[in-house]
Amino acid sequence: MSAYDELMAFTRETEALAQVAGLLSWDQETMMPRGAAAQRSEAIGAMESVLHARRTDPRLGEWLASAEAPDEGGAAQLRLLRHDHERALRVPGDLATALARLTSHAQGVWAEARAADDFAAFAPVLRDVLRLKREEGAALAAGGDPYEALLDGFEPGARADDLQAMFDEMRPALVALRQRALEAPERAPLCGDFDADGQMRLARELAERFGYDFSRGRIDKAVHPFSSGGGDDARITTRISAEDPFNCLYSTIHEVGHACYEQGIDKAWHLSPVGHGVSMGVHESQSRIYENQLGRSRAFCHFLYGRMRDIFGDIGVADEDSFYATVNRLHRGHIRTEADEVQYNLHVMLRFDLERALIAGDLQVDDLEAAWNDRFAADFGYPVGRASEGVLQDVHWSVGLFGYFPTYSLGNLYAGCLHEAMRAELPGLDCDLAKGDPGAATGWLRENVQRHGGLRTPRETIARACGGKAPGAGPLLDYLEDKFGALYPA
Amino acid sequence: MSAYDELMAFTRETEALAQVAGLLSWDQETMMPRGAAAQRSEAIGAMESVLHARRTDPRLGEWLASAEAPDEGGAAQLRLLRHDHERALRVPGDLATALARLTSHAQGVWAEARAADDFAAFAPVLRDVLRLKREEGAALAAGGDPYEALLDGFEPGARADDLQAMFDEMRPALVALRQRALEAPERAPLCGDFDADGQMRLARELAERFGYDFSRGRIDKAVHPFSSGGGDDARITTRISAEDPFNCLYSTIHEVGHACYEQGIDKAWHLSPVGHGVSMGVHESQSRIYENQLGRSRAFCHFLYGRMRDIFGDIGVADEDSFYATVNRLHRGHIRTEADEVQYNLHVMLRFDLERALIAGDLQVDDLEAAWNDRFAADFGYPVGRASEGVLQDVHWSVGLFGYFPTYSLGNLYAGCLHEAMRAELPGLDCDLAKGDPGAATGWLRENVQRHGGLRTPRETIARACGGKAPGAGPLLDYLEDKFGALYPA
Repeated sequence: MSAYDELMAFTRETEALAQVAGLLSWDQETMMPRGAAAQRSEAIGAMESVLHARRTDPRLGEWLASAEAPDEGGAAQLRLLRHDHERALRVPGDLATALARLTSHAQGVWAEARAADDFAAFAPVLRDVLRLKREEGAALAAGGDPYEALLDGFEPGARADDLQAMFDEMRPALVALRQRALEAPERAPLCGDFDADGQMRLARELAERFGYDFSRGRIDKAVHPFSSGGGDDARITTRISAEDPFNCLYSTIHEVGHACYEQGIDKAWHLSPVGHGVSMGVHESQSRIYENQLGRSRAFCHFLYGRMRDIFGDIGVADEDSFYATVNRLHRGHIRTEADEVQYNLHVMLRFDLERALIAGDLQVDDLEAAWNDRFAADFGYPVGRASEGVLQDVHWSVGLFGYFPTYSLGNLYAGCLHEAMRAELPGLDCDLAKGDPGAATGWLRENVQRHGGLRTPRETIARACGGKAPGAGPLLDYLEDKFGALYPA
Repeated sequence: MSAYDELMAFTRETEALAQVAGLLSWDQETMMPRGAAAQRSEAIGAMESVLHARRTDPRLGEWLASAEAPDEGGAAQLRLLRHDHERALRVPGDLATALARLTSHAQGVWAEARAADDFAAFAPVLRDVLRLKREEGAALAAGGDPYEALLDGFEPGARADDLQAMFDEMRPALVALRQRALEAPERAPLCGDFDADGQMRLARELAERFGYDFSRGRIDKAVHPFSSGGGDDARITTRISAEDPFNCLYSTIHEVGHACYEQGIDKAWHLSPVGHGVSMGVHESQSRIYENQLGRSRAFCHFLYGRMRDIFGDIGVADEDSFYATVNRLHRGHIRTEADEVQYNLHVMLRFDLERALIAGDLQVDDLEAAWNDRFAADFGYPVGRASEGVLQDVHWSVGLFGYFPTYSLGNLYAGCLHEAMRAELPGLDCDLAKGDPGAATGWLRENVQRHGGLRTPRETIARACGGKAPGAGPLLDYLEDKFGALYPA
C-alpha cells in the first residue's frame, strides 16, 4: 500500500469513530434518559481520547510527509488532513479530554440555569469552560490571535478582521430596515389550534418536499433543534410550540438544509475529510437559503398557506398576503433563533463582540450578563427581562463553541450570493415554489455546492457556484432591501 | 498511582467504550434509518478494533502481574480481569478477526435462509463458523473440553457435565407434565381489540411496577426484544402483536428483569468488571423470575386481568381463573421464545445436546437439520414443518454463540431457587402481587442478588441469596409441579 492509501484507510476508520462520537451527542439530546448524564460524559470523554490519539498518531505525520495525491480529490484530502493534523498537534491531549468532559457536563448545568433564569448558577462552569477555551485558543494560535484560531476550526481560512468589516458594512443597512419596520404597527402572530401531531406531520412533509431522504435520516424532537451525522445517516431534530407552528416548520426546513448538504455529498467522499460540509458558514448558507430565500418566499408562502389551512383550519390570517407578511413579520423579540432575517444578524454581531472580548480577556464572565443586557438594549432598543431570553438563550458557550456565532452571518451572506446566482439560472422557480416544489432550487444547490463537500475552500466553493464572483454582502443586502422594503414601505 | 489504580482507570475507560459499542447496536435495532446499514457496519468494526486493542494491551498483563487488591471488591475486580485477559490472550488475533468478520456475514446469510426456509443455503457458512468456533474452543480450553471453554465465556465456572446432570434430572418431570397438559383440550388464546397504544401504555406501567427506573432507562420497539446498556443507562425494548398482547407485556417484564439487574448494581461498581450482571445464567434468573414466578403468578394475574379489562374492554375470557389459565396455557408450538415454562427447557436441552455434538465433531452440519427434526419429533411428539420453525429459528449459532443456550435453563433453575428462598422470607407477597405491587419481591432480589453484580461467582451469588443452599433443580421442579399440576390435573 502507498502512504496515501495507508493514510486514507486509517482516516476512514477515524471518520467512522467520529460518527460514533456524533451519535453519542445526538442520543444525548434526543433519547438518553436524564439520569445517564454523568455516565454519558465519561463515554464522550473516552471517545474523545480515542479520537485525539488517532488525530495525533505519529504515523499521520509520516504518511502526510510522503503521501502523493492521486488526483484533485486526493489533493483536497491531503490539504484538509494537514490542516486538522496541525491543529490537533497543537492541543495537549489532557486539555482535549478535559474540554470534552467539562462541556458535556456544562451543557446540563446551562440547561438547568436557563430553566431557572439564573445566570449565577451557570457562571462558575462557564468560567471553567472559558479558561480551557482560552488555553486551547492560545495553543492553536501559536502566537497569533486565539479567537481567530478558534474561528478557523469552524471556518477554515476566515479572518476576524474580515468578519468585522463585513459586519460594519451590513450593520447600517440592517439598522435602518429594522427601525423602519418597527415603527410600523406590530403584526400579530398566527392564531389557531396547532396540535402537535399536525405540526410533526407537516414538518415531515416539508422535509420531504425540500429533498430530505428519510431512508438515510430521521426526525426527532429536541429542546434546541440541530442536525447531526452525515453520509447515509444524517439526522435532524425540531421542536413543537403550541402557539407558534412556524417555530417547528421553519426549524425543520433549516435543519433539512444542513442535512441535505451532508446527504448530497458524492458517495465517493463518504467517510473521508472531503465528505463533509466544507465549513460552518457554507453549511449555514444551505440551511438559511432553504429556510429563508426559499421557505419564506412569497411563492412558497402561497403553497404553505393552503397546506396549513388544510391541516389546522382557521389560522387567524385573512388572506395569503397577510400570511406572507406574518411569516416575515419583524417584531420585538429577544431570541436569536426566532429572529427574522433582518434582526438575526444584529444578534450575531452582539455575540461576536462579546465572545471576542471574553477570549481576549477584556470581558470577565462575572460581567457578561450586564454586558449582554446593556448591548442588547442599545442595539435593539428594549431591555432583556430575564436571563433565559438573554445571555442564557444559546447553548453554544456551554459546549465550548467560541468562534462559531459569526459563521451564522457568513452563512446568510453566502446564501445571498447563491440566491442571486440561482435566480439568474432558474427563471421559473417561483412557479415551482408556489406548487410546493423547491426541487429545481435544491437540485441547483446540490449540483453547484453540496455534492463537492470539502473539495475546495469555503470561499472558492461559493465563488465557483456564483460563476466566479467573490462572495460579498451586496446580494444579501439587496435581497433584504427588496423584500422588507416592500413589506415595510417607507 | 499504584498498578491497581492504573489498571482500574484504564479499565474504566474501556468499560465506557464498551457501553458506546452497545449503544451503536441499540440504535441499529431501534432508531437507525435503513439506508445507514453499511455505514453502521464500519462504525461497529472500528469500535471493535478499538476495544480489541485495549483488551490485548500489553500493559494489562504488567498491571495484573503486580496489582494488589485493596479489599474484597478489588479482589473480585482482579479475578474478573484476569479471567478475561487470559481468555483474550489464548485466542490468536487472526482467529478473532476471522470470527468477527465471518459471523457478521453469517448473520445475514442466516436471516435470508430463514426467510426462505432453506437450511442448505445456511449450511456452508455454518460449517465455516463451526470450524472457527472449534478452533477457538480448543485454543481457550488449552487441553480441556472445547465446549466447556466456550460455555465459560457466558457462565464462568460452569461445567458441561453438571449441566448434563441438571438436564437429566429435569427431563422426566418436564416430559410427564407436558404430556398430561397436552392431553387436555387446548385452551384458546385471548380475543379482543388490543390497540398498540394501549399495549405500550400498559407495558410502561408494568415496567414501573416491577421497579424499572425510567430516569435511567427507556423503552422502545424492536423486532426481537432485548435489553441493553447498564449502570445509569439500561434500556429495554418490546414488540407489539395485535393478536397477542401477552407478547408485548411479558417481553417487557422479562427485559425489565434484565435491566433492573443492571440498574440495581451498587453505583460504586459502575464502569468496572464487577459492575455487570455476573453471568448469563444469573441474568436470565432475574428476567425469568420477574416474568414467570412473579408476572405469571395467580396473584399478579388477578391484578393484570383487571387492568387489561380497564384498557382493552372485553378480552375474550370469562373470569380470572380462565385468564390465569390462558396466561399459563401449554400449547403445541415450535418456537423456543414463545414456549411456556414447562416446554421451554425441553427446547434448550435439544440445542445443548446438538451443539455439544457439533463442537465435539460427533455431528456434522450436513446432518444437523435431520438430527434437529428427529429429536424434536421425539421430544415434543409432533413434527417440524419447515426450517424456520426448526433448526433456523434462532440467530445464536450464526453469530457464533455456542455454549450460550444452556444458560437459559440455568437461569430458570436459579430462578426456582431464588423464588423458594424469597417466598420463605416474604409471606405476604401474594397479597402485594394481587394489588399489582411486586416491590417486596424486586426489593428482595435487589438486596440479595442484583446489587452485588460480579462480586462473587455465579453459583456463590445464588447460594448466598438462598441462605447458603447450593443451587439445584429441585425448587424449580417443585414449583412447576405445583403450578401446572393444578392447572392440568391428572
